[in-house]
Amino acid sequence: MKKIITIGREFGSGGREFGRRLAEELGIEYYDKEIITGISEHTSLSEEYVKQVIEHIPHNLYPITVGRSFTYVEDNVFKQIQSVYKAQSTIISSMAEKSDCVIVGRCADYILKDLKPYRVFVYADIKSRITRCRERSEQTEHFTDKQLKRRILKIDKNRARYYEFYTGNKWGDKRNYDLCLNTTDTVIKDAVLAVAKIFE
Amino acid sequence: MKKIITIGREFGSGGREFGRRLAEELGIEYYDKEIITGISEHTSLSEEYVKQVIEHIPHNLYPITVGRSFTYVEDNVFKQIQSVYKAQSTIISSMAEKSDCVIVGRCADYILKDLKPYRVFVYADIKSRITRCRERSEQTEHFTDKQLKRRILKIDKNRARYYEFYTGNKWGDKRNYDLCLNTTDTVIKDAVLAVAKIFE
Repeated sequence: MKKIITIGREFGSGGREFGRRLAEELGIEYYDKEIITGISEHTSLSEEYVKQVIEHIPHNLYPITVGRSFTYVEDNVFKQIQSVYKAQSTIISSMAEKSDCVIVGRCADYILKDLKPYRVFVYADIKSRITRCRERSEQTEHFTDKQLKRRILKIDKNRARYYEFYTGNKWGDKRNYDLCLNTTDTVIKDAVLAVAKIFE
Repeated sequence: MKKIITIGREFGSGGREFGRRLAEELGIEYYDKEIITGISEHTSLSEEYVKQVIEHIPHNLYPITVGRSFTYVEDNVFKQIQSVYKAQSTIISSMAEKSDCVIVGRCADYILKDLKPYRVFVYADIKSRITRCRERSEQTEHFTDKQLKRRILKIDKNRARYYEFYTGNKWGDKRNYDLCLNTTDTVIKDAVLAVAKIFE
Protein backbone atom coordinates (compact mmCIF):
# COMPACT_ATOMS: atom_id res chain seq x y z
CA MET A 1 0.00 0.00 0.00
CA LYS A 2 1.22 3.46 -0.94
CA LYS A 3 2.04 5.49 2.13
CA ILE A 4 1.48 9.15 1.49
CA ILE A 5 -0.16 10.39 4.63
CA THR A 6 -1.32 13.92 5.31
CA ILE A 7 -2.26 15.11 8.76
CA GLY A 8 -4.54 18.01 9.57
CA ARG A 9 -4.71 18.82 13.25
CA GLU A 10 -6.22 21.13 15.81
CA PHE A 11 -3.67 23.04 17.85
CA GLY A 12 -2.82 21.13 21.04
CA SER A 13 -4.33 17.84 19.82
CA GLY A 14 -0.93 16.14 19.55
CA GLY A 15 -1.23 15.96 15.75
CA ARG A 16 2.38 16.87 15.06
CA GLU A 17 3.68 14.28 17.54
CA PHE A 18 1.26 11.81 15.97
CA GLY A 19 2.67 12.51 12.50
CA ARG A 20 6.31 12.26 13.60
CA ARG A 21 5.77 9.01 15.47
CA LEU A 22 3.69 7.52 12.63
CA ALA A 23 6.49 8.22 10.14
CA GLU A 24 8.99 6.63 12.54
CA GLU A 25 6.77 3.58 13.05
CA LEU A 26 6.29 3.10 9.30
CA GLY A 27 9.94 3.88 8.50
CA ILE A 28 9.05 6.65 6.04
CA GLU A 29 9.98 10.32 5.66
CA TYR A 30 8.48 12.99 7.88
CA TYR A 31 8.38 16.51 6.46
CA ASP A 32 7.94 19.51 8.65
CA LYS A 33 10.59 22.25 8.89
CA GLU A 34 12.13 21.15 5.59
CA ILE A 35 9.10 22.65 3.84
CA ILE A 36 9.72 26.08 5.38
CA THR A 37 13.41 25.94 4.42
CA GLY A 38 12.49 24.89 0.89
CA ILE A 39 9.98 27.71 0.46
CA SER A 40 12.48 30.21 1.81
CA GLU A 41 15.06 29.07 -0.78
CA HIS A 42 12.50 29.12 -3.62
CA THR A 43 11.16 32.58 -2.86
CA SER A 44 14.21 34.31 -1.35
CA LEU A 45 12.04 35.26 1.63
CA SER A 46 13.35 34.69 5.16
CA GLU A 47 12.29 31.52 6.97
CA GLU A 48 10.78 33.73 9.69
CA TYR A 49 8.59 35.55 7.18
CA VAL A 50 7.54 32.33 5.47
CA LYS A 51 6.58 30.92 8.86
CA GLN A 52 4.40 33.97 9.51
CA VAL A 53 2.71 33.75 6.13
CA ILE A 54 1.99 30.04 6.39
CA GLU A 55 -1.28 29.43 8.17
CA HIS A 56 -2.03 33.12 8.42
CA ILE A 57 -3.97 35.05 5.83
CA PRO A 58 -4.43 38.63 7.03
CA HIS A 59 -8.05 39.83 6.91
CA ASN A 60 -7.28 42.72 4.62
CA LEU A 61 -5.95 40.36 1.95
CA TYR A 62 -9.34 38.89 1.27
CA PRO A 63 -10.87 40.08 -1.98
CA ILE A 64 -13.18 43.05 -1.44
CA THR A 65 -16.15 43.31 -3.78
CA VAL A 66 -16.63 46.81 -5.19
CA GLY A 67 -19.70 46.80 -7.38
CA ARG A 68 -19.02 44.00 -9.85
CA SER A 69 -15.23 44.19 -9.76
CA PHE A 70 -12.70 42.84 -7.28
CA THR A 71 -9.85 44.81 -5.81
CA TYR A 72 -7.06 43.71 -3.49
CA VAL A 73 -5.60 45.75 -0.71
CA GLU A 74 -1.80 45.61 -0.44
CA ASP A 75 -1.30 43.95 -3.78
CA ASN A 76 2.41 43.27 -3.35
CA VAL A 77 2.04 41.49 -0.05
CA PHE A 78 -0.75 39.43 -1.58
CA LYS A 79 1.51 38.41 -4.47
CA GLN A 80 4.20 37.41 -1.99
CA ILE A 81 1.75 35.25 -0.07
CA GLN A 82 0.60 33.63 -3.30
CA SER A 83 4.22 32.89 -4.24
CA VAL A 84 4.77 31.26 -0.84
CA TYR A 85 1.75 29.03 -1.44
CA LYS A 86 2.95 28.20 -4.96
CA ALA A 87 6.42 27.29 -3.69
CA GLN A 88 4.84 25.22 -0.93
CA SER A 89 2.77 23.30 -3.48
CA THR A 90 5.83 22.60 -5.66
CA ILE A 91 7.91 21.42 -2.70
CA ILE A 92 5.20 19.23 -1.16
CA SER A 93 4.45 17.64 -4.55
CA SER A 94 8.09 16.84 -5.23
CA MET A 95 8.53 15.40 -1.72
CA ALA A 96 5.52 13.11 -2.13
CA GLU A 97 6.62 11.98 -5.60
CA LYS A 98 10.10 11.12 -4.31
CA SER A 99 9.05 8.66 -1.58
CA ASP A 100 6.40 7.60 0.95
CA CYS A 101 6.02 10.26 3.61
CA VAL A 102 3.97 11.92 6.34
CA ILE A 103 3.26 15.63 5.91
CA VAL A 104 1.63 17.63 8.69
CA GLY A 105 -0.62 20.59 7.85
CA ARG A 106 0.00 23.03 4.98
CA CYS A 107 -2.98 21.98 2.82
CA ALA A 108 -0.97 18.88 1.81
CA ASP A 109 -4.15 16.81 1.52
CA TYR A 110 -5.44 19.22 -1.11
CA ILE A 111 -2.12 19.83 -2.87
CA LEU A 112 -1.56 16.08 -3.25
CA LYS A 113 -5.16 15.15 -4.08
CA ASP A 114 -4.21 13.57 -7.43
CA LEU A 115 -1.90 11.15 -5.60
CA LYS A 116 -4.83 10.12 -3.36
CA PRO A 117 -3.03 10.49 -0.02
CA TYR A 118 -4.43 8.94 3.17
CA ARG A 119 -5.88 11.98 4.93
CA VAL A 120 -5.99 12.02 8.72
CA PHE A 121 -7.47 14.75 10.93
CA VAL A 122 -6.48 14.82 14.60
CA TYR A 123 -8.66 16.68 17.12
CA ALA A 124 -9.46 16.77 20.83
CA ASP A 125 -11.64 18.59 23.30
CA ILE A 126 -10.44 21.98 24.52
CA LYS A 127 -9.66 20.83 28.07
CA SER A 128 -7.27 18.12 26.93
CA ARG A 129 -5.67 20.52 24.42
CA ILE A 130 -4.98 23.03 27.19
CA THR A 131 -3.40 20.23 29.26
CA ARG A 132 -1.25 19.10 26.30
CA CYS A 133 -0.06 22.67 25.67
CA ARG A 134 0.97 23.02 29.31
CA GLU A 135 2.84 19.71 29.21
CA ARG A 136 4.90 20.61 26.18
CA SER A 137 5.80 24.22 26.91
CA GLU A 138 6.82 25.95 30.12
CA GLN A 139 5.88 29.30 28.60
CA THR A 140 2.24 28.43 29.18
CA GLU A 141 2.82 29.01 32.92
CA HIS A 142 2.25 32.70 32.28
CA PHE A 143 -1.25 32.10 30.93
CA THR A 144 -4.50 31.31 32.68
CA ASP A 145 -6.62 28.51 31.20
CA LYS A 146 -8.94 31.13 29.74
CA GLN A 147 -6.05 32.94 28.02
CA LEU A 148 -4.63 29.67 26.73
CA LYS A 149 -8.01 28.62 25.37
CA ARG A 150 -8.30 31.92 23.53
CA ARG A 151 -4.81 31.45 21.97
CA ILE A 152 -5.58 27.88 20.92
CA LEU A 153 -8.86 28.85 19.29
CA LYS A 154 -7.21 31.79 17.53
CA ILE A 155 -4.52 29.57 16.02
CA ASP A 156 -7.19 27.14 14.83
CA LYS A 157 -9.17 30.00 13.34
CA ASN A 158 -6.12 31.04 11.33
CA ARG A 159 -5.53 27.46 10.19
CA ALA A 160 -9.15 27.15 9.12
CA ARG A 161 -9.04 30.44 7.20
CA TYR A 162 -5.78 29.54 5.50
CA TYR A 163 -7.07 26.09 4.52
CA GLU A 164 -10.40 27.36 3.28
CA PHE A 165 -8.80 30.23 1.37
CA TYR A 166 -6.65 27.88 -0.72
CA THR A 167 -8.75 24.75 -0.94
CA GLY A 168 -12.33 26.02 -0.86
CA ASN A 169 -13.04 23.17 1.56
CA LYS A 170 -14.05 23.33 5.20
CA TRP A 171 -11.11 22.62 7.52
CA GLY A 172 -11.79 19.68 9.81
CA ASP A 173 -14.94 18.56 7.94
CA LYS A 174 -14.87 14.75 8.12
CA ARG A 175 -15.92 14.45 4.45
CA ASN A 176 -12.44 15.67 3.46
CA TYR A 177 -10.57 13.02 5.48
CA ASP A 178 -10.24 9.25 5.52
CA LEU A 179 -9.84 9.07 9.27
CA CYS A 180 -10.65 11.52 12.07
CA LEU A 181 -9.05 10.72 15.39
CA ASN A 182 -10.11 12.20 18.72
CA THR A 183 -7.04 12.30 20.97
CA THR A 184 -8.87 13.39 24.14
CA ASP A 185 -7.56 11.13 26.95
CA THR A 186 -5.41 9.28 24.41
CA VAL A 187 -1.72 8.40 24.60
CA ILE A 188 -0.45 9.46 21.17
CA LYS A 189 2.08 6.62 21.06
CA ASP A 190 -0.72 4.03 21.41
CA ALA A 191 -2.89 5.72 18.79
CA VAL A 192 0.04 5.64 16.37
CA LEU A 193 0.56 1.90 16.81
CA ALA A 194 -3.08 1.28 15.93
CA VAL A 195 -3.23 3.62 12.93
CA ALA A 196 0.08 2.24 11.58
CA LYS A 197 -1.69 -1.12 11.15
CA ILE A 198 -3.79 0.39 8.37
CA PHE A 199 -0.65 0.57 6.23
CA GLU A 200 0.74 -2.88 6.91
CA MET B 1 -8.78 -2.23 27.87
CA LYS B 2 -12.54 -2.24 28.34
CA LYS B 3 -14.28 -3.02 25.06
CA ILE B 4 -17.64 -1.35 24.89
CA ILE B 5 -17.84 -0.06 21.37
CA THR B 6 -20.71 1.89 19.86
CA ILE B 7 -21.04 2.42 16.14
CA GLY B 8 -22.94 5.22 14.46
CA ARG B 9 -23.14 4.88 10.69
CA GLU B 10 -24.47 6.46 7.56
CA PHE B 11 -26.77 4.19 5.57
CA GLY B 12 -24.77 2.24 2.97
CA SER B 13 -21.40 2.98 4.58
CA GLY B 14 -20.89 -0.64 5.66
CA GLY B 15 -21.16 0.34 9.33
CA ARG B 16 -23.24 -2.67 10.34
CA GLU B 17 -20.84 -5.09 8.63
CA PHE B 18 -17.99 -3.21 10.30
CA GLY B 19 -19.60 -3.66 13.72
CA ARG B 20 -20.33 -7.35 13.24
CA ARG B 21 -16.84 -8.13 11.98
CA LEU B 22 -15.20 -6.04 14.71
CA ALA B 23 -17.08 -7.99 17.40
CA GLU B 24 -16.01 -11.25 15.74
CA GLU B 25 -12.38 -10.11 15.52
CA LEU B 26 -12.33 -9.08 19.18
CA GLY B 27 -14.31 -12.12 20.33
CA ILE B 28 -16.98 -10.03 22.05
CA GLU B 29 -20.77 -9.80 21.84
CA TYR B 30 -22.51 -8.08 18.95
CA TYR B 31 -25.99 -6.73 19.64
CA ASP B 32 -28.35 -5.89 16.86
CA LYS B 33 -31.70 -7.65 16.44
CA GLU B 34 -31.62 -8.78 20.09
CA ILE B 35 -32.34 -5.18 21.06
CA ILE B 36 -35.54 -5.08 18.98
CA THR B 37 -36.67 -8.41 20.46
CA GLY B 38 -35.91 -7.16 23.97
CA ILE B 39 -37.85 -3.94 23.48
CA SER B 40 -40.77 -5.84 22.02
CA GLU B 41 -40.88 -8.08 25.13
CA HIS B 42 -40.54 -5.13 27.51
CA THR B 43 -43.27 -3.03 25.90
CA SER B 44 -45.61 -5.72 24.52
CA LEU B 45 -45.41 -3.98 21.15
CA SER B 46 -44.78 -6.06 18.03
CA GLU B 47 -41.20 -6.29 16.74
CA GLU B 48 -42.41 -4.79 13.45
CA TYR B 49 -43.82 -1.73 15.22
CA VAL B 50 -40.72 -1.31 17.37
CA LYS B 51 -38.59 -1.45 14.21
CA GLN B 52 -40.69 1.30 12.66
CA VAL B 53 -40.46 3.49 15.74
CA ILE B 54 -36.71 3.09 16.11
CA GLU B 55 -34.85 5.64 14.03
CA HIS B 56 -38.06 7.28 12.94
CA ILE B 57 -39.65 10.16 14.79
CA PRO B 58 -42.70 11.35 12.87
CA HIS B 59 -42.71 15.08 12.19
CA ASN B 60 -45.96 15.67 14.02
CA LEU B 61 -44.50 14.33 17.26
CA TYR B 62 -42.13 17.23 17.61
CA PRO B 63 -43.20 19.72 20.25
CA ILE B 64 -45.19 22.59 18.75
CA THR B 65 -44.79 25.94 20.43
CA VAL B 66 -48.12 27.68 21.03
CA GLY B 67 -47.45 31.01 22.66
CA ARG B 68 -45.41 30.12 25.72
CA SER B 69 -46.79 26.62 26.20
CA PHE B 70 -45.98 23.31 24.50
CA THR B 71 -48.51 20.87 23.18
CA TYR B 72 -48.05 17.42 21.64
CA VAL B 73 -50.08 16.03 18.81
CA GLU B 74 -51.10 12.38 19.11
CA ASP B 75 -50.19 12.08 22.75
CA ASN B 76 -50.67 8.33 23.00
CA VAL B 77 -48.39 7.52 20.10
CA PHE B 78 -45.82 9.85 21.57
CA LYS B 79 -45.99 8.04 24.90
CA GLN B 80 -45.54 4.73 23.11
CA ILE B 81 -42.47 6.03 21.31
CA GLN B 82 -41.05 7.29 24.59
CA SER B 83 -41.63 3.88 26.18
CA VAL B 84 -39.78 2.23 23.30
CA TYR B 85 -36.82 4.55 23.87
CA LYS B 86 -36.92 3.90 27.62
CA ALA B 87 -36.97 0.12 27.09
CA GLN B 88 -34.13 0.50 24.58
CA SER B 89 -32.04 2.40 27.15
CA THR B 90 -32.66 -0.24 29.82
CA ILE B 91 -31.77 -3.12 27.50
CA ILE B 92 -28.65 -1.49 26.04
CA SER B 93 -27.40 -0.56 29.52
CA SER B 94 -27.88 -4.06 30.87
CA MET B 95 -26.17 -5.57 27.81
CA ALA B 96 -23.12 -3.32 28.22
CA GLU B 97 -22.91 -3.99 31.95
CA LYS B 98 -22.99 -7.74 31.36
CA SER B 99 -19.97 -7.99 29.07
CA ASP B 100 -17.78 -6.30 26.43
CA CYS B 101 -19.77 -5.71 23.27
CA VAL B 102 -20.31 -3.85 20.01
CA ILE B 103 -23.65 -2.05 19.60
CA VAL B 104 -24.62 -0.51 16.27
CA GLY B 105 -26.81 2.61 16.20
CA ARG B 106 -29.71 3.24 18.59
CA CYS B 107 -28.11 6.18 20.46
CA ALA B 108 -25.98 3.63 22.33
CA ASP B 109 -23.07 6.11 22.55
CA TYR B 110 -25.33 8.50 24.45
CA ILE B 111 -27.19 5.89 26.52
CA LEU B 112 -23.88 4.39 27.70
CA LYS B 113 -22.02 7.67 28.18
CA ASP B 114 -21.30 7.01 31.86
CA LEU B 115 -19.48 3.80 30.89
CA LYS B 116 -17.28 5.81 28.49
CA PRO B 117 -17.70 3.56 25.45
CA TYR B 118 -15.37 3.84 22.46
CA ARG B 119 -17.52 5.72 19.95
CA VAL B 120 -16.99 5.08 16.24
CA PHE B 121 -18.79 6.79 13.37
CA VAL B 122 -18.63 5.18 9.92
CA TYR B 123 -19.34 7.25 6.81
CA ALA B 124 -18.66 7.31 3.08
CA ASP B 125 -19.33 9.39 0.01
CA ILE B 126 -22.72 8.96 -1.64
CA LYS B 127 -21.37 7.22 -4.77
CA SER B 128 -19.74 4.43 -2.80
CA ARG B 129 -22.84 4.09 -0.60
CA ILE B 130 -25.02 3.59 -3.68
CA THR B 131 -22.58 0.93 -4.91
CA ARG B 132 -22.61 -0.82 -1.50
CA CYS B 133 -26.41 -0.82 -1.41
CA ARG B 134 -26.55 -2.40 -4.87
CA GLU B 135 -24.03 -5.08 -3.87
CA ARG B 136 -25.93 -6.15 -0.80
CA SER B 137 -29.50 -6.14 -2.08
CA GLU B 138 -30.99 -7.26 -5.39
CA GLN B 139 -34.07 -5.15 -4.70
CA THR B 140 -32.05 -2.07 -5.61
CA GLU B 141 -32.25 -3.20 -9.26
CA HIS B 142 -35.63 -1.51 -9.45
CA PHE B 143 -34.19 1.89 -8.52
CA THR B 144 -32.19 4.39 -10.54
CA ASP B 145 -29.11 5.89 -8.86
CA LYS B 146 -31.07 9.09 -8.30
CA GLN B 147 -33.90 7.22 -6.56
CA LEU B 148 -31.45 5.23 -4.47
CA LYS B 149 -29.62 8.36 -3.43
CA ARG B 150 -32.89 9.92 -2.32
CA ARG B 151 -33.74 6.83 -0.23
CA ILE B 152 -30.29 6.75 1.38
CA LEU B 153 -30.42 10.43 2.30
CA LYS B 154 -33.95 10.03 3.67
CA ILE B 155 -32.91 7.17 5.95
CA ASP B 156 -29.95 9.24 7.18
CA LYS B 157 -32.24 12.20 7.80
CA ASN B 158 -34.45 10.00 9.99
CA ARG B 159 -31.43 8.67 11.87
CA ALA B 160 -30.18 12.21 12.44
CA ARG B 161 -33.58 13.39 13.69
CA TYR B 162 -33.98 10.42 15.99
CA TYR B 163 -30.48 10.85 17.42
CA GLU B 164 -30.81 14.58 17.90
CA PHE B 165 -34.27 14.25 19.40
CA TYR B 166 -33.04 11.98 22.19
CA THR B 167 -29.47 13.12 22.74
CA GLY B 168 -29.55 16.83 21.91
CA ASN B 169 -26.30 16.22 20.00
CA LYS B 170 -25.62 16.50 16.29
CA TRP B 171 -25.55 13.10 14.61
CA GLY B 172 -22.21 12.47 12.86
CA ASP B 173 -20.47 15.48 14.45
CA LYS B 174 -16.89 14.30 15.03
CA ARG B 175 -16.81 15.92 18.49
CA ASN B 176 -19.18 13.19 19.71
CA TYR B 177 -16.98 10.30 18.54
CA ASP B 178 -13.53 8.92 19.28
CA LEU B 179 -12.94 7.76 15.73
CA CYS B 180 -14.59 8.66 12.44
CA LEU B 181 -13.87 6.30 9.59
CA ASN B 182 -14.46 7.06 5.92
CA THR B 183 -15.17 3.76 4.15
CA THR B 184 -15.18 5.16 0.61
CA ASP B 185 -13.05 2.75 -1.50
CA THR B 186 -12.36 0.72 1.63
CA VAL B 187 -12.65 -3.03 2.15
CA ILE B 188 -14.52 -3.27 5.47
CA LYS B 189 -12.64 -6.42 6.47
CA ASP B 190 -9.30 -4.57 6.25
CA ALA B 191 -10.59 -1.55 8.16
CA VAL B 192 -11.77 -3.87 10.93
CA LEU B 193 -8.34 -5.49 11.31
CA ALA B 194 -6.76 -2.06 11.77
CA VAL B 195 -9.34 -0.69 14.20
CA ALA B 196 -9.26 -3.91 16.24
CA LYS B 197 -5.62 -3.10 17.06
CA ILE B 198 -6.78 -0.16 19.16
CA PHE B 199 -8.23 -2.65 21.65
CA GLU B 200 -5.31 -5.06 21.86
